[in-house]
Amino acid sequence: MNSFGRNFRITSFGESHGAVVGVIIDGCPAGMKLTVQDIQPLLDRRRPGTSPLTSSRNEMDRVEMLSGIFEGQTTGAPIALIVRNENQNSKDYEELREKFRPGHADFTYQEKYGIRDHRGGGRSSGRETIGRVAAGAVALKYLSEYGITVTGKILLVHGKTNPEEIEREISSAKEAGDSVGGIVEIIAAGCPPGLGDPVFGKLDALIAGAMMGIGAVKGVEIGDGFAVSGKFGSENNDPMNKDGFLSNHAGGILGGISSGQDIVVRIAVKPTPSIAKVQQTRDIHGNVVEISVGGRHDPCIVPRIVPVAEAMLALVLMDCMLEQVKYR
Amino acid sequence: MNSFGRNFRITSFGESHGAVVGVIIDGCPAGMKLTVQDIQPLLDRRRPGTSPLTSSRNEMDRVEMLSGIFEGQTTGAPIALIVRNENQNSKDYEELREKFRPGHADFTYQEKYGIRDHRGGGRSSGRETIGRVAAGAVALKYLSEYGITVTGKILLVHGKTNPEEIEREISSAKEAGDSVGGIVEIIAAGCPPGLGDPVFGKLDALIAGAMMGIGAVKGVEIGDGFAVSGKFGSENNDPMNKDGFLSNHAGGILGGISSGQDIVVRIAVKPTPSIAKVQQTRDIHGNVVEISVGGRHDPCIVPRIVPVAEAMLALVLMDCMLEQVKYR
Amino acid sequence: MNSFGRNFRITSFGESHGAVVGVIIDGCPAGMKLTVQDIQPLLDRRRPGTSPLTSSRNEMDRVEMLSGIFEGQTTGAPIALIVRNENQNSKDYEELREKFRPGHADFTYQEKYGIRDHRGGGRSSGRETIGRVAAGAVALKYLSEYGITVTGKILLVHGKTNPEEIEREISSAKEAGDSVGGIVEIIAAGCPPGLGDPVFGKLDALIAGAMMGIGAVKGVEIGDGFAVSGKFGSENNDPMNKDGFLSNHAGGILGGISSGQDIVVRIAVKPTPSIAKVQQTRDIHGNVVEISVGGRHDPCIVPRIVPVAEAMLALVLMDCMLEQVKYR
Amino acid sequence: MNSFGRNFRITSFGESHGAVVGVIIDGCPAGMKLTVQDIQPLLDRRRPGTSPLTSSRNEMDRVEMLSGIFEGQTTGAPIALIVRNENQNSKDYEELREKFRPGHADFTYQEKYGIRDHRGGGRSSGRETIGRVAAGAVALKYLSEYGITVTGKILLVHGKTNPEEIEREISSAKEAGDSVGGIVEIIAAGCPPGLGDPVFGKLDALIAGAMMGIGAVKGVEIGDGFAVSGKFGSENNDPMNKDGFLSNHAGGILGGISSGQDIVVRIAVKPTPSIAKVQQTRDIHGNVVEISVGGRHDPCIVPRIVPVAEAMLALVLMDCMLEQVKYR
Repeated sequence: MNSFGRNFRITSFGESHGAVVGVIIDGCPAGMKLTVQDIQPLLDRRRPGTSPLTSSRNEMDRVEMLSGIFEGQTTGAPIALIVRNENQNSKDYEELREKFRPGHADFTYQEKYGIRDHRGGGRSSGRETIGRVAAGAVALKYLSEYGITVTGKILLVHGKTNPEEIEREISSAKEAGDSVGGIVEIIAAGCPPGLGDPVFGKLDALIAGAMMGIGAVKGVEIGDGFAVSGKFGSENNDPMNKDGFLSNHAGGILGGISSGQDIVVRIAVKPTPSIAKVQQTRDIHGNVVEISVGGRHDPCIVPRIVPVAEAMLALVLMDCMLEQVKYR
Repeated sequence: MNSFGRNFRITSFGESHGAVVGVIIDGCPAGMKLTVQDIQPLLDRRRPGTSPLTSSRNEMDRVEMLSGIFEGQTTGAPIALIVRNENQNSKDYEELREKFRPGHADFTYQEKYGIRDHRGGGRSSGRETIGRVAAGAVALKYLSEYGITVTGKILLVHGKTNPEEIEREISSAKEAGDSVGGIVEIIAAGCPPGLGDPVFGKLDALIAGAMMGIGAVKGVEIGDGFAVSGKFGSENNDPMNKDGFLSNHAGGILGGISSGQDIVVRIAVKPTPSIAKVQQTRDIHGNVVEISVGGRHDPCIVPRIVPVAEAMLALVLMDCMLEQVKYR
Repeated sequence: MNSFGRNFRITSFGESHGAVVGVIIDGCPAGMKLTVQDIQPLLDRRRPGTSPLTSSRNEMDRVEMLSGIFEGQTTGAPIALIVRNENQNSKDYEELREKFRPGHADFTYQEKYGIRDHRGGGRSSGRETIGRVAAGAVALKYLSEYGITVTGKILLVHGKTNPEEIEREISSAKEAGDSVGGIVEIIAAGCPPGLGDPVFGKLDALIAGAMMGIGAVKGVEIGDGFAVSGKFGSENNDPMNKDGFLSNHAGGILGGISSGQDIVVRIAVKPTPSIAKVQQTRDIHGNVVEISVGGRHDPCIVPRIVPVAEAMLALVLMDCMLEQVKYR
Repeated sequence: MNSFGRNFRITSFGESHGAVVGVIIDGCPAGMKLTVQDIQPLLDRRRPGTSPLTSSRNEMDRVEMLSGIFEGQTTGAPIALIVRNENQNSKDYEELREKFRPGHADFTYQEKYGIRDHRGGGRSSGRETIGRVAAGAVALKYLSEYGITVTGKILLVHGKTNPEEIEREISSAKEAGDSVGGIVEIIAAGCPPGLGDPVFGKLDALIAGAMMGIGAVKGVEIGDGFAVSGKFGSENNDPMNKDGFLSNHAGGILGGISSGQDIVVRIAVKPTPSIAKVQQTRDIHGNVVEISVGGRHDPCIVPRIVPVAEAMLALVLMDCMLEQVKYR
């Protein structure tokens, strides 16, 4: 399904090479001031063409608000946001009509649906995230009014943590017709305690689902994450004094519910599967073929994942804020 | 919310020290043979008292089927499964009425609800997983009829991978009044391609949410997981020939949809927060106090998480199997 | 699906001749005092054996609370309520294993599931409503704290509106081995304006779905209902002055949202399909057969529908109250 | 919420005087041929300006498909359909900024949201149904491939059943600055047995909710509907022989599940609340004022409700068809 959230529910639509990509937001509280200027900056951080290290496609990705706003304020009605697709070159993709790109959804979509829009990945394209980012920007606006901020950053690319080394790794991967992966950390500060539900609606469960739902993400951890596997309980528990917690190994969530501390999330991003290097694959007829994925692809998707991850975390928190208020 | 799944929808209920813990399964196809013998073995693997290294509480955890079965078969009606609580000693927990245990949900529940069943963690107790395991056993029965198996194992405890060393780590933690964490790997074999949905309903997103919804889990990864952050695209992509994939870095999922390969999931389990070692915390009045968590606690919850993680993966797959069939 | 509601979500389970019938309530706010005495009276109004005009089955229908309550208050955890089935005589129903009762779900369940619990209708039995009534009683308790009341009454039975005539109609139908239908009106007073959502979540849409989901209900109307088909707009619109509305043709709902006036609902209840009179039907082998439905059936289900309809209206209002609060 | 359906899930958006009205369809099976020509005819039946008896607004209501289609076929991705608003005159509505129109959602929206798009009713406008009708047309296309048809007709307007008398009633209401109500009947033929679920997901419950969710509908009945209140069980039960049912008092649904007979639904439609006749109301400041609702309004909305009701019934059936297949 293409919807996410219970209370601040978004529905994503559109394909890479269709007319538009967009999102419907259902459940945004009425009376919030909202203009495209609240949304465009996050989209601008997501779009390609802003650095020599990202794709050279020059997409302006201008958001339009089609509904749900009256005289500059939300009305409680669904908010439709779209970005028109431009500068898409379908011919770049003709070879992909029959060949399955390694590491892509081509094979699995074909198996599931028996039909597949091969142009730029269609629905599995990174452009689909435009809707999420636009909706996330609306959530961030609302959260900021409650003093909540969400900030992501690159922790590591291809094993390197230093910005200069990261740049060098990406450049050399690009030259080699290859790509590299990395790790992003996202922190939400200012959250009230009480967000999230016990059992299946745990805040960390919602976050994990949201993050792993971003294409290219292969791992999610909260607080100390995988490092807990090497620790004693006495090291990992966060003691309290009368002012609160003395450490934050838990990453701001206890028993699935926010504690009021920073919420700390890390995600592992795989190397972009679209690479110029020749790879072996098969076509829809079962023949073994070679493929060199042309087009203008990011040698490292990590920088552009940052705003998407911020958006997804904002959407989860927004949803929990609205849930929370029900029981006050 | 206490429900999980869209098509094979389970609702969990009950507290550690209440009358029962249980689950309602809604959406189980009619006409499947089902008896308590299909369910009890997985519950037996979850229950404590089976090894010197787990809690010494001796809970029999006998499952009862209250509805949804007629003459040994499912009817399509909701299946209610309960386990009566026995051998619970509420007095063990009297100290916890006012003190917040470090690493537990005590503080966050109190903040969220303003009321809290302090006895054994109430709803946040590990006993809540009994419902999930019982429902997972029903899913496993169904999946097995389609040739799908789900198998979990301990990969690592407190940095050790060798079974004997693991046993030693747990024993020494127990003696020290402490606890240790670890990593569990769960593999589903025999899945057809096509399970999962693009975008928010990605199979890996559902799995990540399901796994992170198990108490004590702090990280989830699929396939190569966090290791992708150090790899080239040309290493990480799985090439194909006419018989299928030549490697499985992806962990059986591409674009959120199963590829037919093994689905490979790993989860990080934190050290049990209940430890005898004295820790600093606060009470509900804001006073700083010391706490030594008594009772009969597992020094390492990793072994008992294995069947819970198997159950959760089975529930996700079951749900996707029923979803899948709509588009055939 | 066997769940109802978004925020105060109930899941019904159990069959007429199984071990129990029951309900799980998920989403009840924490901190509300709740005992079985809050629930039993509404169940008592629903149960048979209380009048010579209802079924002579003597079911005590004692409710038990299995979870979600701690020291007399709700904790925010799921509340499990069950009633054990007693005084059920499965042998009464042996003939129905193969014959489809006219007016019953026997044929359609068989077609849908290929298997059917024929004993007393199994899941389609009126006993299934016990869960709804128990959950409705919890909702009524909450609503009463906000000054909202829900009251049902019989408007008409077999064309008669006078209580004495109604009694006579039912008695004579019973003697004739037949049954009669009627109309029930349910009024909710004290509702705040603003309950319900535009478009698909209209309060009247939710009510209509809830009421038509009661077995035997064949029609639902709000306010003037079907009578609007003979009216002018100038008659049907409710004018306002500064104190509010001057009439209530709308039945308390405008544009799907409560106006603060009384919410007025009427439902049409069909004659009980189980009658002693001989009817023609077919069996599962396709043979034409005669059937006289024995057992102890109500010659008129209308009186026992009243508390069920009250419960369903209360559940809808409760759900909207919790939704409402999200946007305040 | 602005979504409807579980499996064929539609999300409606847009206001009367905004840029567009539209719908997202999520869950349409892949591989179905679909063009705007499959959708436009049902929209044309809904639009005004086609008869002297409907509103003289001349809206062309041209549907555009923005996503979900590839080379003329559905791909399984969300289908976005929009109609651009034209010929809307916002100035017609300036008086309504402060006055509450009797019989409209103006007062209740103001109470619920504290803000209200007064232009043409904004979200509560009849134009919102364009999205439902467009989605319904897609459902009808799918259903027709399974031999299912859905047909609506006017049964009665202002007490008259004869077409000529109906025309006269509408004309004279129009001249008097007034409006009239009526009854519509919708029949679905060719449905397989087994659609719908026991308990809360009964087919008739879904239909009742769908129909009552159409603005102006105040009553819904299935089969014999309210007439069952005057009948004996022996009259109302539908006997069977080996070929099926001998009558259809039930309206094609037994125990909430389709029987394979025609599904028969009737709805009561209130007189259009927008009338030129002077009425008393209040404004947002609490002053009593008079109002004459200008603009170009339908003196009887009954004819234009017919395609909307067909669409809603089609959406319910479509949803149940996709649900059904899970249990085969």
